[in-house]
Amino acid sequence: MKNNKNTSTNPIVYVLNPSCQIEDLEIGSDYEGVITRVEKYGFFVSLSKSVYGLLRTRNPKEKVGNKIVVKIAEIKPHKGKMDVDLSYSKIKYGNDYETKTVKRNVKRTKIGDLSEDNLGRNVAIQGEIIQIQQTSGPTIFTIRDETDITWSAAFNEPGVRMYPELEVDDVVEILGEVSIHGGKIQIESETIEKLDKTEEEKLKELIDKSIDQKAQPTDTSVMIENSEVLNKLRPKLAEAAKAIRRAILDGRSILVRHHADADGICAGIAVEQAVLPILREESNDADAEWHFFKRSPSKAPFYELEDVVKDLSYALEDMERHGQKLPLLVLLDNGSTEEDVAALRHSKVYGIESVVVDHHYPGEVENGRALIDNYVDIHVNPYLVGGDSQLTAGALAVELAGMINPDVRDKIRHFPGIAAVGDHAECMEVDQYLKIAEEEGYTRDDLDKVATCVDFEAYFLRFMNGRGVMNTILGLEDKQRQEELLDVLITESDKRVETQLKAALPNVETEYFDNGIQFNRLDVEKYAHKFTYPAPGKTTGYVHDKLVQEKGEDKPIMTLANGPDFAVLRATEVIKNEFEFNLNDVITKIQEEIPQAGADGGGHEVAGSLKFVEGLEEEVLALFTQEVKNLKR
Amino acid sequence: MKNNKNTSTNPIVYVLNPSCQIEDLEIGSDYEGVITRVEKYGFFVSLSKSVYGLLRTRNPKEKVGNKIVVKIAEIKPHKGKMDVDLSYSKIKYGNDYETKTVKRNVKRTKIGDLSEDNLGRNVAIQGEIIQIQQTSGPTIFTIRDETDITWSAAFNEPGVRMYPELEVDDVVEILGEVSIHGGKIQIESETIEKLDKTEEEKLKELIDKSIDQKAQPTDTSVMIENSEVLNKLRPKLAEAAKAIRRAILDGRSILVRHHADADGICAGIAVEQAVLPILREESNDADAEWHFFKRSPSKAPFYELEDVVKDLSYALEDMERHGQKLPLLVLLDNGSTEEDVAALRHSKVYGIESVVVDHHYPGEVENGRALIDNYVDIHVNPYLVGGDSQLTAGALAVELAGMINPDVRDKIRHFPGIAAVGDHAECMEVDQYLKIAEEEGYTRDDLDKVATCVDFEAYFLRFMNGRGVMNTILGLEDKQRQEELLDVLITESDKRVETQLKAALPNVETEYFDNGIQFNRLDVEKYAHKFTYPAPGKTTGYVHDKLVQEKGEDKPIMTLANGPDFAVLRATEVIKNEFEFNLNDVITKIQEEIPQAGADGGGHEVAGSLKFVEGLEEEVLALFTQEVKNLKR
Amino acid sequence: MKNNKNTSTNPIVYVLNPSCQIEDLEIGSDYEGVITRVEKYGFFVSLSKSVYGLLRTRNPKEKVGNKIVVKIAEIKPHKGKMDVDLSYSKIKYGNDYETKTVKRNVKRTKIGDLSEDNLGRNVAIQGEIIQIQQTSGPTIFTIRDETDITWSAAFNEPGVRMYPELEVDDVVEILGEVSIHGGKIQIESETIEKLDKTEEEKLKELIDKSIDQKAQPTDTSVMIENSEVLNKLRPKLAEAAKAIRRAILDGRSILVRHHADADGICAGIAVEQAVLPILREESNDADAEWHFFKRSPSKAPFYELEDVVKDLSYALEDMERHGQKLPLLVLLDNGSTEEDVAALRHSKVYGIESVVVDHHYPGEVENGRALIDNYVDIHVNPYLVGGDSQLTAGALAVELAGMINPDVRDKIRHFPGIAAVGDHAECMEVDQYLKIAEEEGYTRDDLDKVATCVDFEAYFLRFMNGRGVMNTILGLEDKQRQEELLDVLITESDKRVETQLKAALPNVETEYFDNGIQFNRLDVEKYAHKFTYPAPGKTTGYVHDKLVQEKGEDKPIMTLANGPDFAVLRATEVIKNEFEFNLNDVITKIQEEIPQAGADGGGHEVAGSLKFVEGLEEEVLALFTQEVKNLKR
Repeated sequence: MKNNKNTSTNPIVYVLNPSCQIEDLEIGSDYEGVITRVEKYGFFVSLSKSVYGLLRTRNPKEKVGNKIVVKIAEIKPHKGKMDVDLSYSKIKYGNDYETKTVKRNVKRTKIGDLSEDNLGRNVAIQGEIIQIQQTSGPTIFTIRDETDITWSAAFNEPGVRMYPELEVDDVVEILGEVSIHGGKIQIESETIEKLDKTEEEKLKELIDKSIDQKAQPTDTSVMIENSEVLNKLRPKLAEAAKAIRRAILDGRSILVRHHADADGICAGIAVEQAVLPILREESNDADAEWHFFKRSPSKAPFYELEDVVKDLSYALEDMERHGQKLPLLVLLDNGSTEEDVAALRHSKVYGIESVVVDHHYPGEVENGRALIDNYVDIHVNPYLVGGDSQLTAGALAVELAGMINPDVRDKIRHFPGIAAVGDHAECMEVDQYLKIAEEEGYTRDDLDKVATCVDFEAYFLRFMNGRGVMNTILGLEDKQRQEELLDVLITESDKRVETQLKAALPNVETEYFDNGIQFNRLDVEKYAHKFTYPAPGKTTGYVHDKLVQEKGEDKPIMTLANGPDFAVLRATEVIKNEFEFNLNDVITKIQEEIPQAGADGGGHEVAGSLKFVEGLEEEVLALFTQEVKNLKR
Repeated sequence: MKNNKNTSTNPIVYVLNPSCQIEDLEIGSDYEGVITRVEKYGFFVSLSKSVYGLLRTRNPKEKVGNKIVVKIAEIKPHKGKMDVDLSYSKIKYGNDYETKTVKRNVKRTKIGDLSEDNLGRNVAIQGEIIQIQQTSGPTIFTIRDETDITWSAAFNEPGVRMYPELEVDDVVEILGEVSIHGGKIQIESETIEKLDKTEEEKLKELIDKSIDQKAQPTDTSVMIENSEVLNKLRPKLAEAAKAIRRAILDGRSILVRHHADADGICAGIAVEQAVLPILREESNDADAEWHFFKRSPSKAPFYELEDVVKDLSYALEDMERHGQKLPLLVLLDNGSTEEDVAALRHSKVYGIESVVVDHHYPGEVENGRALIDNYVDIHVNPYLVGGDSQLTAGALAVELAGMINPDVRDKIRHFPGIAAVGDHAECMEVDQYLKIAEEEGYTRDDLDKVATCVDFEAYFLRFMNGRGVMNTILGLEDKQRQEELLDVLITESDKRVETQLKAALPNVETEYFDNGIQFNRLDVEKYAHKFTYPAPGKTTGYVHDKLVQEKGEDKPIMTLANGPDFAVLRATEVIKNEFEFNLNDVITKIQEEIPQAGADGGGHEVAGSLKFVEGLEEEVLALFTQEVKNLKR
Repeated sequence: MKNNKNTSTNPIVYVLNPSCQIEDLEIGSDYEGVITRVEKYGFFVSLSKSVYGLLRTRNPKEKVGNKIVVKIAEIKPHKGKMDVDLSYSKIKYGNDYETKTVKRNVKRTKIGDLSEDNLGRNVAIQGEIIQIQQTSGPTIFTIRDETDITWSAAFNEPGVRMYPELEVDDVVEILGEVSIHGGKIQIESETIEKLDKTEEEKLKELIDKSIDQKAQPTDTSVMIENSEVLNKLRPKLAEAAKAIRRAILDGRSILVRHHADADGICAGIAVEQAVLPILREESNDADAEWHFFKRSPSKAPFYELEDVVKDLSYALEDMERHGQKLPLLVLLDNGSTEEDVAALRHSKVYGIESVVVDHHYPGEVENGRALIDNYVDIHVNPYLVGGDSQLTAGALAVELAGMINPDVRDKIRHFPGIAAVGDHAECMEVDQYLKIAEEEGYTRDDLDKVATCVDFEAYFLRFMNGRGVMNTILGLEDKQRQEELLDVLITESDKRVETQLKAALPNVETEYFDNGIQFNRLDVEKYAHKFTYPAPGKTTGYVHDKLVQEKGEDKPIMTLANGPDFAVLRATEVIKNEFEFNLNDVITKIQEEIPQAGADGGGHEVAGSLKFVEGLEEEVLALFTQEVKNLKR
């Protein structure tokens, strides 16, 4: 040491990290320590949590708790362990000297290299804390480095939170013994210490890169190869899949909101089926699939303020109460339209990332972007690439689910067929999805039955997601039970539809316009049961279908059913294709011409709804009718 | 062994069960084992979890993990325990030989024979797993044999699920030590193993028989001895009591749904009072009465799809998340009618057992069966044995509760009186129930007050069962508090009824038909407050009662109050008895003659309601009125 | 002993308390004991939990479990501990003798004197049990004496409830060792025993006095010094603060109910901010702020039966299931009026203490008391001291919060400004509150924006309190985030208000009465969107404000908007001040003159609402209009 020329004019005094061991000492060097016991024959000085030495001098001035600088005189074996003999250093504690921290010299083991072969071995791991759970026994830290995740238990007294200074996102070094808990590797920690800034940043970058890589979906193929729209949407779907995988790996929860109809429910359950197995694998929380995944139906096909305030309230409470991170928001079969702006802006204020997979008309598209793109992180919608709503959200979500977790692909191959039939969608892709569903044993009639039953059940479930029953209906569980349940539900659904039709059909008023359009009107509030299944929208659909059946699907037929402050529209595709009718445009016109009616609403071009102020019912419906009359092929 | 002639041509090699001990070995016999340690002086072979022997031969070919057949050479004491010396068998591992499994030879102790006298003793018990709970310490298996239930703790590391291969309903043998936990006997398990198929079936049968016996109610007497209807219903009530007791013993939860009026609530609470003490006794879960018993009011007097989808969603989640069995469904004061079919069919798809105790008109009865009997397991209804709705569900449920748990009889003797007065029931049985209530200190006015307060409170409780407040109102707790609460509620109820009557009475229109019937009409939507207590049905009741009071109960008086799409009916008994009026028949007629009105509803003969499509209001009410006009004595 | 003359003719036999130690024995005296082991050389007799002695006589008659009276022959050291030698007493067990209980002689330590210096020391503490928690490890008793609170752990087996005979409110002596758990002092109990009646009463009194003292607020100053009304209310506010502090110290939960508008929400959150830190400090339950504090908005400005039955159901379940005490009910911006009577009487039946801080008109005031004072414990309302509703509940609750917890004062100084602007309040106090808010950086426009956003968000939150988002809106958290969120919400609110105004304004009908009043009428059900924001009351407000803007605030302008069975009123202050109009009086008149209309409602003098029966709409509105016409300056 003496000859070792020091550029600084000050001498060096070493400070051991709490975890240092005897082998980290150097004989002849000076160390800071604290006096922990005073005996007649000398006093003991602690240098780290487990390293101490004896200074064999009686010095009545030395008191327990005093800080002191000592020199390592000798390290020698004694009774099977090593004793450290100290002497006074020439340097006095607190004087002018440079301190250097000595870190325990254990080579870092990457988490991915831990295995049962290391059982009982002492290792050092470094990583980011991604969760802290206080059990009734130890505190459990979930740690991630660039290779893998592991758990570290810190224990002192049962139920006491260890290292209260550590928080989620801190980067730490853990020294401890490799053990097994519940069949998984776990580190019984001896010490947990924060890394310094530079090391932290270096590791964070490595971790980020590696998670990013792990989040990358491996198989981004789609079920239909020759679809132009689907192929254009593939990169966006892959991005969405990555965002969802990334959120899981980040320890964020996944919050799925979807429209409460057959299309939206297929979408939601497809993603659920993809995410749950990953959650079960990635988390050591036995209730992970309940704590880190939430799926809720939204009555409207928008993400509304009612929804977002509820979701935020729960998420903020989970954060404050359970230390959870804010969730990734995944909107399926809703989220694309102007109606979604307020809620999405609201969630954005809290920095919540959002993924939207929708097929509702998002308004004008420019450079592949719609209004909502200002507020969502990843937006998948056929309209953005020249497609339209015939490619259902259910189909898109199934493709997404397959990218998130390829294992799920075989189980949900029939979902796009259900979604398509449920949404009355028709296009090249739908034809192929129907073929695929047929391969799985579902004829078109079967799909229709399933879709109807999903809708029927959803009506009664209201705000519940009904995971158990929906899984039965969709054929994810016992096939025999699926058949029985479909039978029960379709019988009841048919009965209730029949009841509504019995009341409604005799009261439909039909006009034939000069442009060839058959225009059907119904007061659906007076001539149908209220607050029951099927609700006005669906009742209108059934009435319309019945009337179309008589004349043929290729005829221009429109059905407008209304109550005192709303109307529901259904029309044949020909009215969209040949008359260039778009409900959303008519609503805009009503808004302009009768502003005091407060008209609002929308949907697909020839299927949607409209709200207005009761006092202006007559004016609004008259203008609507006039617009239809004025249509030309 | 040598002389023991073996019928098979193959030699026999024994395989020890994991729990076998040294005393299960036979010197000279051959056993399969696995090499677990290799030393210079030989190698160790494990034969069971705790039995191993030493084969003193150096053989470099033998490796840890190799399977081997060995012969037991000697068993000798060494340093206070027994050492097993092995030699090579003539039989090579994997060659042609017959294996025989050796089970540890501990005589089975029946659970019923366990007592504190056995503390610390090693025992073998056999039984069926009826619940598995993971605590933050050991895994707790609830085990039942044909004599009793006990708990077995399996412990390795805190919070780790032991024996993950075991599931509820498996039949196992547990070897372990008798201990006491929380004042109850518990087996600290050493090993838990599934029994083989034959043993399993034998034990299952024994258990089934014994539970069945234990489930059998001991006292199936009823409170009224000379009631023909009640006597005819007794066997069915006993069956229902047994089913409920059986479900508790099976570890299923009890899900009670009842109509949310005084009758239904008395029924629900009677059964609740009977079940809870048994639950507390039978379960070692301190929260058993919350986890295994649920009681919910249904607004309608039917079990509706809204109810069943909610119930199923929770039940299926409890099953998936907490390992619970599906519940036994108990419907009280609802469940008998055609309106209940869909929901009951729905629950049946999941194999849920159901018990119905109702007094609503179940439609046509043939051979003691009504339509709903196709979908419920046990159906108790006076109509099935020639009685009618005057025998309330509350009374029947009280009789049922007494059979489930005789200890409860004394506490609920006044309930049938409350139910009867609440439902305006009158018959021989009711008279006697009123007398019994009087013995308990409840005059008819008291009962009326309680019934009114139950209804009043239920209105505000909506979907909550309000166990705490209802127990006060019904006099199950502090009598002084009951009185105070009744006073608060009746004051408020009277005030609100008065408000409604003040608006309604001046607007009642009365006609006197030629057949002598006084027919009162009221637009209850225009001339009463909406969305408040009393609701239209009850308001109609109060109006009707007021009008009947003026003329006398023996007069034929009918009150029909309606809104735009519903009507409520109340009439004096004479209209049922002498004019043979049955509301349900009139509804059927309306359904036939004005099918487009979508009329629906029902109830008792002279008290019930009716829904229809708003646009057909006039036609429906006209037909109804005509029907009443046409009645003849 | 021999010479010690005994007044009783019977000899004395001592009985040791279970916790007694050897030092509690007296040589030569007689003690009752029980034989616990029989050996060849004699038998062992247990005298307390840990004290036993040996009686060296072989006596085959003595059996384990037999009770016996023994004399202490000798106490001598043996192998480092003390041995007790016994001899037979002359007195036979069960014979005629007087027993005296010997209590362990440990001087009581006051809880407040416990410190880390006592670690490891055996102490005796006495106190009242205020909570019992069963953990998965020990049972934790929260104990309070007159100096402080501490926790005592009782442990036998994990998860087993110790001392099941002990209940909350029992007064006990705990002997045990001082230890640290989770950073807090805890007693590892050796024994816990109930004190006798006299000691109990003495200690209870001491505790009561000391808590009372601790509950006393230290700083009862108000933000505005020269307000007569506020100064008159100060003592009542201090009482309310004390009641709330006292409830926390008692281990009761705090149940806050407040009106769901900006005023009520400011009030609720002010009290929440004051209470939570105290809860965190006073409880060792990490979830204390969730378990012991509940805040719920009430849609109406009354505490309704709907609310109280829900609150009671939960509270009674918490009591039965979790051993909680019944809560203290704190009503803010509601609770003062006749409409609150029923709910408050209901809660009173269960002995629930209530504090009301409201500014709604409480009806006639006599001797500083209104009707509701018969049913609430502490009632703070400006009307009681000659003030009126211009002093908002929000302001009063902020003053209250400052008294509960002075630390909170700085954080909520701007709340009264928000409340005032939200409630359109104007008075001397409001002016000063606005100045204070300005000091905090909130202009009047800022306050208006915040108030509007609170109302807007509350509309969508419905029954949720939305703690997280509300804290953001009110500026209790990140200021940047507050600004962003206000921006999102105000944009959306403005848009929706504009939509309603666009429909409503063109349909307002205005009349000018002879008395100079401009009377505006609107059918708000026909000419505004239903079931959306802003709701009819608020829509009427916006319409009124718009119309007032045109003419000036000093003009007598009244707006009456109605639906078929309700009406909403807004009027300028001049109509109250110069025309002496009071909505509540008009409602009384309607009730008298058109009793069958069932009119009801109320609010402030010139802002409130009115319900009536649909069929009497015309009559009610005509009378109302006539009343306004008849007004005179």
